[in-house]
Amino acid sequence: MTSRWQQALYTTEGINSEGLEGHAYVPGGLKVQTSSPLNSHPGTNPEQLLSLSLSTCLEATLEAIEREHQLPHTAAVRVQVAFIGERAHYEFLVNAQIKIDGVDFKTAQELTAEAEKRCCVSQLLAGSQNYTVETVTKFTDN
Amino acid sequence: MTSRWQQALYTTEGINSEGLEGHAYVPGGLKVQTSSPLNSHPGTNPEQLLSLSLSTCLEATLEAIEREHQLPHTAAVRVQVAFIGERAHYEFLVNAQIKIDGVDFKTAQELTAEAEKRCCVSQLLAGSQNYTVETVTKFTDN
Repeated sequence: MTSRWQQALYTTEGINSEGLEGHAYVPGGLKVQTSSPLNSHPGTNPEQLLSLSLSTCLEATLEAIEREHQLPHTAAVRVQVAFIGERAHYEFLVNAQIKIDGVDFKTAQELTAEAEKRCCVSQLLAGSQNYTVETVTKFTDN
Repeated sequence: MTSRWQQALYTTEGINSEGLEGHAYVPGGLKVQTSSPLNSHPGTNPEQLLSLSLSTCLEATLEAIEREHQLPHTAAVRVQVAFIGERAHYEFLVNAQIKIDGVDFKTAQELTAEAEKRCCVSQLLAGSQNYTVETVTKFTDN
């Protein structure tokens, strides 16, 4: 593509050439078995991999923000993903819960807002109405 | 949240409460060690996890589309992710390459367009200018 790719600090890739019941891998790196979320076969799935990507990205961003504010690192992130819809019209819902102990709730909300804006995966999802972020004092199910 | 979550066919979650150098996990499922893409510590990172999520989602969608068109399953998906920017202003670039052997290039492009529209992870990224999808006859670096 273009110069933005050439200025990258880091590039990586993932490949799936098998299918939903198969394997996905990073050349020279992580390899995972994948399976449909709708059966009990062993393996992970796009929903789980997205939840791990987003939770780690938000957590890393919060860690940097806490450091910038001279706060201890207490933030924790839980990302829930739901698979909804019907044949040929499926969607994912994605909700991130951010819990930051040791600061008041208003401060936690401000740090959440900053992380939502700065986290690279969050930026990619920001155009979707199915993506939400909330500050919580305790992780709770949707 | 709301009724859309309650109608889910499947829900899952991922948690990271450690940081970029730590672990992320699905309760009762996949656990991965994570590390910064900018050092050589062992572990995966949000970039790789996103590439695995998107490549598996697109591949699963293509598998379904091939079946609907009575085509053999030959599609393969490679997702490249680049980390660009500078302190506090980072972004990811995401490019998916779709290769479908055994059909002419125009057909491959039509199947690509359908997969891009139907794949749930692709839908979530669709609002971002940093996300691109291309049909290729061979995987090539950006």
